[in-house]
Order: sequence, then C-alpha cells, then structure tokens
Amino acid sequence: MKTTLCWVLWSIVLAFPANAQHADSLMLRTIYHEVLGQGESYQRLRELCKGVGHRLAGSSQADAAIQWGKQVLESYGLDKVYLMPVEVPRWVRGKTERAFYSHQGGRQEVPITALGGSVGTGGIIAANVVEVRTIEDLHKLERSETEGKIVFFNKPMDPLAINTGAAYGGVHDVRTKGPSEAAKMGAVACIIRSLTLAEDRFPHTGATRYDTLVSRIPAAALSSVDARALSVALKADPNLLFSLELDCQDFPRTIQYNVIGEITGTEFPDQFIVVGGHLDSWDIGEGAHDDGCGIVQSIEVMRCLKAIHYKPRYSVRCVLFINEEFGNDGGETYARIARERGEIHIAAIESDGGGFTPRGFSMQGSDVQYAWLKQLDDLFEPYNIHQFRRGWSGVDISPLKDDRVALFGLLVDNQRYFDYHHSNNDVFEQVNRRELELGAAAMASLVFLIDQSGIPAQ
Amino acid sequence: MKTTLCWVLWSIVLAFPANAQHADSLMLRTIYHEVLGQGESYQRLRELCKGVGHRLAGSSQADAAIQWGKQVLESYGLDKVYLMPVEVPRWVRGKTERAFYSHQGGRQEVPITALGGSVGTGGIIAANVVEVRTIEDLHKLERSETEGKIVFFNKPMDPLAINTGAAYGGVHDVRTKGPSEAAKMGAVACIIRSLTLAEDRFPHTGATRYDTLVSRIPAAALSSVDARALSVALKADPNLLFSLELDCQDFPRTIQYNVIGEITGTEFPDQFIVVGGHLDSWDIGEGAHDDGCGIVQSIEVMRCLKAIHYKPRYSVRCVLFINEEFGNDGGETYARIARERGEIHIAAIESDGGGFTPRGFSMQGSDVQYAWLKQLDDLFEPYNIHQFRRGWSGVDISPLKDDRVALFGLLVDNQRYFDYHHSNNDVFEQVNRRELELGAAAMASLVFLIDQSGIPAQ
Repeated sequence: MKTTLCWVLWSIVLAFPANAQHADSLMLRTIYHEVLGQGESYQRLRELCKGVGHRLAGSSQADAAIQWGKQVLESYGLDKVYLMPVEVPRWVRGKTERAFYSHQGGRQEVPITALGGSVGTGGIIAANVVEVRTIEDLHKLERSETEGKIVFFNKPMDPLAINTGAAYGGVHDVRTKGPSEAAKMGAVACIIRSLTLAEDRFPHTGATRYDTLVSRIPAAALSSVDARALSVALKADPNLLFSLELDCQDFPRTIQYNVIGEITGTEFPDQFIVVGGHLDSWDIGEGAHDDGCGIVQSIEVMRCLKAIHYKPRYSVRCVLFINEEFGNDGGETYARIARERGEIHIAAIESDGGGFTPRGFSMQGSDVQYAWLKQLDDLFEPYNIHQFRRGWSGVDISPLKDDRVALFGLLVDNQRYFDYHHSNNDVFEQVNRRELELGAAAMASLVFLIDQSGIPAQ
Repeated sequence: MKTTLCWVLWSIVLAFPANAQHADSLMLRTIYHEVLGQGESYQRLRELCKGVGHRLAGSSQADAAIQWGKQVLESYGLDKVYLMPVEVPRWVRGKTERAFYSHQGGRQEVPITALGGSVGTGGIIAANVVEVRTIEDLHKLERSETEGKIVFFNKPMDPLAINTGAAYGGVHDVRTKGPSEAAKMGAVACIIRSLTLAEDRFPHTGATRYDTLVSRIPAAALSSVDARALSVALKADPNLLFSLELDCQDFPRTIQYNVIGEITGTEFPDQFIVVGGHLDSWDIGEGAHDDGCGIVQSIEVMRCLKAIHYKPRYSVRCVLFINEEFGNDGGETYARIARERGEIHIAAIESDGGGFTPRGFSMQGSDVQYAWLKQLDDLFEPYNIHQFRRGWSGVDISPLKDDRVALFGLLVDNQRYFDYHHSNNDVFEQVNRRELELGAAAMASLVFLIDQSGIPAQ
C-alpha cells in the first residue's frame, strides 16, 4: 500500500519536469545533510590509515585492509558483501634503502625511495652521475657518456599548468620508462626527481615498468629539494660518486581480493551502478589521499543510501579494488568477470584524485550521456560543483569501458594532491573532514541521479 | 613612437570584440604564468609569519609588519609608497591565561584564549557554570539561574552549511554579544565554544563587543573538544566549579599605519583601483590565512603588474590596512581620507577569506556592474574560476561603498578556513603555495580586466 502510494506520487512528480527537478534537489539536500551531519567516512579513514596503515598489494597489510573493508561493508546491512579473488604481484621494498654522495669534503646523505618494482642493488652501487632532464635529452647523449653511470632524470613538474594532473602527465614517463631507457644506454642505475610540485624533502615512489628486452637496473626517487641540491653539486663536481643501496625483491604472485558490497536494485537487479576506489596503496605513508579517501567515500555512499532508506532501482555496487598501483589487477579482474557473467553496467564512478573539495565530474561516455551530465549543473550549483567535463574517469573502472556504460571520475581541487601522492606525507592528518565528506555526498548524489534517470545509453 | 604604435594596435584589437576577448585571454595567461612561475607571495608570507609573527593592531609586532610591508612594496619600484596614520586601540592579552575545573576527583586543565577586548579577572574567578546554546536560550532563563555564575555558550557551527562562512555567520553573535548579554543576567564571566567546525583542542579568539550600558565581564573561548567535555562534565555535576584567570588590559589608543603602494595610471591618474587585505592579525598563531595571505597576494598583484610591464590606465593601489580585527580603523580611515581628497574609486578587491584555491568573486555594486562581472566567466574558466556572485566583499574596503565603486571579494574554497581562523593553528605551514598563488593571479587578472574596461558605473 505504502509502496503503491509512493509510486503514484513519484509518477506525478516525474510527469512534470519542474517537479522532478524539485524532487531531485530535495533528495540532494537529504544526501548532503546525511553525509555532513552523520557521516562516518572520516572515522573510517582514521581506522584505515592508523589501524591498517599503508597496504601495498600482496602485503599482509593489504590482507588486513581487505578484512577491514569487508567488515565495514557488512556492518551497514547491505544485501550482499563478498570477496572476489584477484591475482596480484608481490614486491617487497626491503629494509635497506640509502644513498649518499661526497660533496664539499663531506658525505651528503640523501633520503630516497625505491621506485615500485625496482630490483635491488646487491650491495652498494657507486658510480658517476649523468644528469638529464627528459628521456629525449638522454637519447641525445652518446652511449659512452652514460655507460656504467647512474642516469639522473631531473625533470620538474610544470608549475604553470592549472591542473596538477596535467603537470603530472607531463613528467611521469621518467618514472615509468626512464629506468629502462637508461639501461638501454648502459647505465647501472637510475634516479629521478620526485614527481611533485612541492619543494620539500619527501621522496615519492610509484611504479616503474621495466622493458623486458633490456636488463633491469635499480631505480629510486629523490625529493625535489635533494634533486636540486644534487644538480648543484654536479655542476661543482661532475665526477662525484653517487652511492645507492636497495634490497628490493620480487616474490611469486599471490591471491588477494576485491571487496564488493551491493544494494540490489528493485527494478533492474541485474544492471549495475558501481562506486569505487582502490584499497591498495604504496608502501610508504598511509595511502590517505591515494586512495583511502576514495575507499571511504565509496563506502559512505552505501551507508548514506541505507541511512536515508533509499531503495535504488538499479543495483548499486561499492567495489574496493585491489592493486591499482601496480598493474590494475583488481579493475581488470572485475571487468572480466562482469563480462563473463553478462552483467550490464550502466555507470561507474571512481574517486581517486584525493579527498579534496569536489569540483565536479569528468566522464567517458557517449554524446548523449555527456549531455545528460551537463544538465545537472543547476542541481549541483548549491554545492559548489561546477565542472562537468569529458575526460579520464579512473584506472580501476576503465576496463569496464564498452558501448553502454558511462564512466565518471570525481574531480577535486587537486592543487595539493602531488604534495602527498606516493610519499610518507600521504597521511590521515592531511585530509580535511569536510572536504572528504563533500566528495562522498557528491558521489552519492550522482548515484541517485543516475539511478533515477537510468542514464541514456547513446 | 612605441606608445603610439601600441595604442594603434590596441585600438584595432578593441574594435573587434572577439579580438579583445582573445587579447584579454592572452593577458590572463601572462599573468598566471608570471605568478605561478616567478611569484614571490609564498616567500613573502614566510617572512611575515616567521619573521614578524602575529601582529595585533597596537602591538610592536604590528609596527614591525608595517615596516616590512613598506620595504617590500618599495622594493618593487612602484610610483609611490607611503604610510597613512591610523588611530588604533591597544589591548594586551597579558601573561596569565588559564582555566580548570574539578572533575571525577581530579583537576581538569582547559586550554583557553581570552576573547579580544576582554577585561582581566583580577585574580581567579571560580563559579558555577550555566550552559546555554544561544543568546535566545539565555534569555529564557531567570536571572536567579545566572546571577554570580559563568555563562557557557556551547553553540556549534552548523556542519550542514556548504559555505562555512554562512555557518560562522550563524554563531558569531555568541562571541561578539554573548559576554554582555550574560553580564545583563548577572553573570561574572562568559566562556564560549570556539567558532570552528574542527574537532580539536585549539581555542579560537576574536573580538567581543561590550555593551557600554552593562559591566564588562571576562570572556574566553574553549576549544570544540573541551567545550564538549565540559558539557559532559556539567551533566554529571551541575555544581562543578569552573576557575578562570585572565590578566588582559586595555591601554590608550595609539597611532599605526595603513601601508599604501601605488602605480599611477596613464590615463586616469586620479581614479583608483584598490587591492588589499589587512596587515594586522590576532595575537595568537601567525595570522597566516587571516590575513597574511591577503596581504602577500595584494603585494603580488603589484609585483606582477610591474614584472609584466603592464602600465595601468587607472591608478592601482595596494593597501595593507591596519586593524581590521578590532574596529576596522584602517578601512574607515582610508575611506574618510579618500572622500576628503575627492578621490574617485572605481573598484576595490579584498582577499580576506584565507589563501585557499580561488573559486570566484563576490561583489557589491550595481546591476550593470554585476552583469559586467558575470560576463567574465569564459575568461576565467581555464583557471577553474566559476563563481561570480553578489555578496559581501571585505571588511576593510566596505567603507568605500558609494554609488560609483564596485567592491569585490576574492571567493575561495573555505572548507578549512575555520580550522585555523583566530587560533594558534593559523600558521604558515597551513598555506599551500599554489593555492595562495592562484588567488594572487585571479586578483591580478581582475585588476587588469577592470583597468581595461573602466568598469561601468551604473
């Protein structure tokens, strides 16, 4: 009786676009009030960062994070919570990680961090350093200039880019490809300036990808301040000896899990809206912004929908993906299984840009879907959400791309993101509660609006 | 010859609106590149926060800040740099500031901060506490319930407001008026929950305004965490004794200075565009966001205009106002003297919302001026500036309001602002370099656009 009445009222509302807009706007207010007033994402982030800590895929901490995620989702009374096995790599940084060089008669110790996937040095490597800015600059050198040396990529991020993600895109080739390019030139190791806009002494890690056709050489990052200092030292003494010791190791691949929680749809239980982020982080810091925030925001979307007693028409799935950082195994596995099961995904939303004030959504989808997104601007204006753009959505959800699904990325104010990203500085204390919560509320609002409209396919 | 050629080219550009838009857009890019690439605002903020420190109007630190501001402006080769005398109050917090209460058999020490302008306690005041939420709640009590007691306003800021400034507006009456309202009810002192959305142990100060018709009672703020704890303790023991000791003192008013730097206009030297913030801060923390950021951004506007060799048509003035926090003497004096001199101000821009990512501009002005502001949205879109609103501009520039001037406030992402505002947590380390610089670039861009258009009067 009650359901029928609701349905009749809802039909009346939907029959008049202005009323529908008004009903949507009331629901957005309800969502924001729930998340800002009763939200649990900040407390959950504290648990994940302080209770579990960093959680590289393949590590025991990642196991703990998976258990934590499952328990939290179970506590919210969803219709299903389960684990999806995913094969992940297991790389271990090891205990020794140091670098130093002689300078002005003294020994200059340099904080470094091995790049993810680096091989160890097998004792100390000591060699001269060849500084270059870019891979293109490296290729201009003769092999005799690099043979037996340590190649040092000292390429700062572009401070003139307004979008820090674009600045990151302009430099991250030195981290992913630089070591193998240096190996091709006979280098014995590779060091890089950290990919950050901050001037500080935090080295930033991140995956490097070895080219299988060339020998794997050790690779590490220096902080921006130390990169500058080394560059100055090299000008004074081009023959200085740089010493590097890493004892990273690769172990056999292992099984971990995507954690999935679901509210089953009332009308279209076999069609899915996904919200997610990645549960793994790098093995330094606490993975707070990258991507603890996306995890707790995605969980908060589910908690919020339950708390306001919203029964979605489509099934809403929260997916805590495992191993975004080091091969996207969680995202690839999820998409493969979805295809095998013939599941229809109508939309997926990822938060993986840090827990900063949300500014909007980027999308990968059809023109019709983009037009649908853009007409949400009036609804989101009261929440200071203004950006509705075509663009990248998220690594974890990207393998879902097909002709039907609309993929969304939460756009945030990313000025501070690369101050923390992949470093010991990415800790809980760097996250502001309200900024985090506003992101969760924006995501929950978008889930609601997609669920109501069904989002056009083409 | 060169000037004539420029003028001819410019006339051609202006004759075609699309070209004018394109020229404006190129100039904005030049400005942003200058500020993000060569900007000095962050270094200047470090000097102000770490070299001078907090700088309450009337204090010797404020004298030092005035000298610092004058020297910095002089270093940029402006056409005029001078000091404008302003009479300011001189209130001194004193050395003793403590509070404690008995709880669960022990003594609970409470970090407090006297409200600005508070009288001292003259030794320790110990009294029972009456907790109320609002001034309206206080008025519902009988005088017998408050006589001889300490009134405790425990009114949290509303977390549901998206704009934290609106949440602040909803509570700051307990700080400004609460102590005198409590005095009217016979209270011996007044304590308030700090005006912040953060849950931490930083007490936040700020001006209280005594009603001259009632005796002045001591007034102080507790942190949000301590306010919550006291509230819990009061429920367990409504008769607990709260002890408070402050030795604040008022001294005779004294003379300090607005610091003014000017680039004289080429066409309209007697008409002015002002950029400014307030040089004074509260006497705890470092006044980094409030309003060190506004100061260094305003200075950066001048540095940028000189660096890119822009010669404004109107005179551009940077005003570092003294004493916004405690009576707006700098703003009132500046406006009075401007009127006495018959100076025409066409626009004024204030930054006093913290050095966070800029989101847009609010304005006080005519419909025509507002229409002019709104049409800037395309120009500012590449810089993630979307908000062009009617609304409050800034305390310091508000006395300039007349029929001609357009007053603008830099709108920033203010989610974190009240975590720092008026507390020991408002320090240089809480400011992000890029967020600060983006604000300065937005202000410089608006100055340029106003200077080009002359901004319509009505």
